Amino acid sequence: MITDIRENAAIASLAASFSRSPRQLNGLQESDAELIRLNSGTILALTTDAIAEEIASGLYADPWLAGWMAVMVNFSDLAAVGAEPLGILIAETLPADISEGTTIALQKGIRDACIACESHVLGGDTNAGRMLHITGTAVGIITSGRPLTRVGIRPDDLIFSTGPLGEGNAFAAATLAAVKGLTAQYRPIARLRHGLAIRPRAGACMDTSDGVLATLDQLARLNNVGFLLVPDWASRLAPSATAAAVQMGIPPWVFLAGPHGEFELIFSASQEQAPAVRESLRPLSGECVLIARATATPGIAIPGLGLLAPEDLAAIRNLEMPSKNTTLPYIRAILDIGQAAQNRTTK
Amino acid sequence: MITDIRENAAIASLAASFSRSPRQLNGLQESDAELIRLNSGTILALTTDAIAEEIASGLYADPWLAGWMAVMVNFSDLAAVGAEPLGILIAETLPADISEGTTIALQKGIRDACIACESHVLGGDTNAGRMLHITGTAVGIITSGRPLTRVGIRPDDLIFSTGPLGEGNAFAAATLAAVKGLTAQYRPIARLRHGLAIRPRAGACMDTSDGVLATLDQLARLNNVGFLLVPDWASRLAPSATAAAVQMGIPPWVFLAGPHGEFELIFSASQEQAPAVRESLRPLSGECVLIARATATPGIAIPGLGLLAPEDLAAIRNLEMPSKNTTLPYIRAILDIGQAAQNRTTK
Repeated sequence: MITDIRENAAIASLAASFSRSPRQLNGLQESDAELIRLNSGTILALTTDAIAEEIASGLYADPWLAGWMAVMVNFSDLAAVGAEPLGILIAETLPADISEGTTIALQKGIRDACIACESHVLGGDTNAGRMLHITGTAVGIITSGRPLTRVGIRPDDLIFSTGPLGEGNAFAAATLAAVKGLTAQYRPIARLRHGLAIRPRAGACMDTSDGVLATLDQLARLNNVGFLLVPDWASRLAPSATAAAVQMGIPPWVFLAGPHGEFELIFSASQEQAPAVRESLRPLSGECVLIARATATPGIAIPGLGLLAPEDLAAIRNLEMPSKNTTLPYIRAILDIGQAAQNRTTK
Repeated sequence: MITDIRENAAIASLAASFSRSPRQLNGLQESDAELIRLNSGTILALTTDAIAEEIASGLYADPWLAGWMAVMVNFSDLAAVGAEPLGILIAETLPADISEGTTIALQKGIRDACIACESHVLGGDTNAGRMLHITGTAVGIITSGRPLTRVGIRPDDLIFSTGPLGEGNAFAAATLAAVKGLTAQYRPIARLRHGLAIRPRAGACMDTSDGVLATLDQLARLNNVGFLLVPDWASRLAPSATAAAVQMGIPPWVFLAGPHGEFELIFSASQEQAPAVRESLRPLSGECVLIARATATPGIAIPGLGLLAPEDLAAIRNLEMPSKNTTLPYIRAILDIGQAAQNRTTK
């Protein structure tokens, strides 16, 4: 069930008392951005996302990165529904003792991200507070055709990613666990052009903001399917993830399981549509890599590991978000869940 | 100058490095909500506002009120541009130890405010953090006609309010200064219908989210005018403000000067248009009260006190936001500025 995941249950509970707008096209959880029909036939895509935990945990210790991410996480949600960005609103809560250098770097991160996405800051709000806290709200439009949602996957559909996987978790391992000699670049770019290109023909789509397995598991629960990763899934990992796995001596699938995303789009296409969808991405930078096939069996089967059942995936997704001191125990908890699944599979 | 106000200067500085969208109709500071033209000719109105300081200071100690205000402050900005609300997005940062009762009251405040405004929560985001923090982002539309902005006041124009004044500051005095025997209800309702009704004929419009004098001063700076309050301005105060002034033994104009708003709309109309504008508000609840006349002289003249020059108003607006321990010194600082102005005027 979708509410076996604690975050899903929290959202459902918070939203339970709210009435839904008759203009709203998507159900709760069913798309990365809210889809609102205007009288003109245009569909607005709206999404809001705060950067607070990542700053508090030290993951985004660099204020430039905090600004960049406040923009990118929101534009990535627009990408996943195939909307064109109109811009973003930024509400900043700034501590009284923030340095000028920090503020400048933060604003530069916001600006650079907008330039990278060919979009604009439309407005904002500033507040004083104890902790730095940035909330972005992105607005996009779809002037014709249907939006992409998380719904529309059938068994045997093919599952693609717009780029290599595991970079977010490799960055978190390098930054939070401070593994000796491990560094990782992290500067995800919302896949806006990819979302627009695949929208006419793709099935479902979701960004990997919470990591690959969380994305696949969410799609599995919403579409009542499971996934079988391709045999050479490890070759789809980003070089930083592969390097981190080797350096840390842990199996590479952990970099799919962690909660820090690479902000790629994961999308489905039927076997018939797949060649045309891949063709539509050819002019764009990045890649379009086959990562899995949808199955009628629930869970996510990882060649070389075994089948992670929905309960295993819920257990992974319901772990406390790791901070500096808890990253290694967090990784160990994931490994234990994987080991138990492997033992079950090979029994 | 508009940037003599610290908050204005901070916004200008934060926004300085950002490019502006070619779709954006309003300049920085020139309207309560951002105005974005769509291809269909529809104008989107967008605004974002966080509730954090008011929770931290204890002003919104009631979680129901925090939820209510997170919605109302944003819908009030839509009201001030004359937009119809499409809905609101809510990003909540919740402390790990938040009680179920607090969460329920918070959500109920959000829901009740949406019902009062006949609108909807469209989506949101939840985060974990040390402090409760709520960011609302409201979206509205204007399908025909021009939006209301803060610009369009000429000397001799009449200035109206959609309701009585001073309730926000009376509430703050009761809540933060804990004056014995003083209580104040506070449940502002965004004046959405008023904004729609006056849009065709009013000059400029702004909500009183930061209190009456801050609103008038901002309008004065943007339109290069001043204001002369009506002789019986004290009769435009809310009963709670008058009662608080008596109880605390301070002059009632302080309840126009404080930073906590009543979320009424303050708008201008030319002498010719004024009767029609008033007529358009007659079917609505609330009032339409004449509070001032625009003048060519800068500053705000308050009969019985004297002329608050732009420097005085800047000094008031640049005071640190009051908290529990600083409310009485804050009021004293305002009184000192007023006394100096009075001495100058009567010299």
